[in-house]
Amino acid sequence: MHKPKYHIFVCSSSRINGEQKGFCFQKGAVEIVNNFIEEIQERELDGEVMVTNTGCFGICSKGPIVVVYPEGVWYGSVTPEDVEEIMDSHIEEGKMVSRLAL
Amino acid sequence: MHKPKYHIFVCSSSRINGEQKGFCFQKGAVEIVNNFIEEIQERELDGEVMVTNTGCFGICSKGPIVVVYPEGVWYGSVTPEDVEEIMDSHIEEGKMVSRLAL
Repeated sequence: MHKPKYHIFVCSSSRINGEQKGFCFQKGAVEIVNNFIEEIQERELDGEVMVTNTGCFGICSKGPIVVVYPEGVWYGSVTPEDVEEIMDSHIEEGKMVSRLAL
Repeated sequence: MHKPKYHIFVCSSSRINGEQKGFCFQKGAVEIVNNFIEEIQERELDGEVMVTNTGCFGICSKGPIVVVYPEGVWYGSVTPEDVEEIMDSHIEEGKMVSRLAL
């Protein structure tokens, strides 16, 4: 199968059973996911870059959390406005966004 | 921060808004997640191996889907019984489980 070059995981506090609630969900995670989807489509990076919502990463106090693989870079306190910078710098230029990295 | 050596993502059909339903959820994904958690604890691999539930990976017909990073290995049609083999082979011996790989 064709695999994405970058796989972006966004904690949306998706619980494995039951109602979705939690820090990342309350702090804009849904908008973060949607912004990534929009940026990927606008930049025509479908297939190369994938975004997936997740359950808790266990460091809620630093949320919303975004993790980018294969590098394994963890970003904390991400806002919907940060998505464009992560796309510009990390995804398009291969440079981690240091100010957000955990 | 301390990062896991292996990060296992399991599609549990966790939707970003609203009720959790979907192929992977119906086909045992919750048990798969729970089995990984148990195996990680029993093998004392907390901190080294992390498991996270996710929303849809987009290839539902091949679900339940398990993705292991940093390698980016995608496994399909995973059953709760397959978890032990993935832990033995991939996680402990570094050998992909070919029969499940997509």
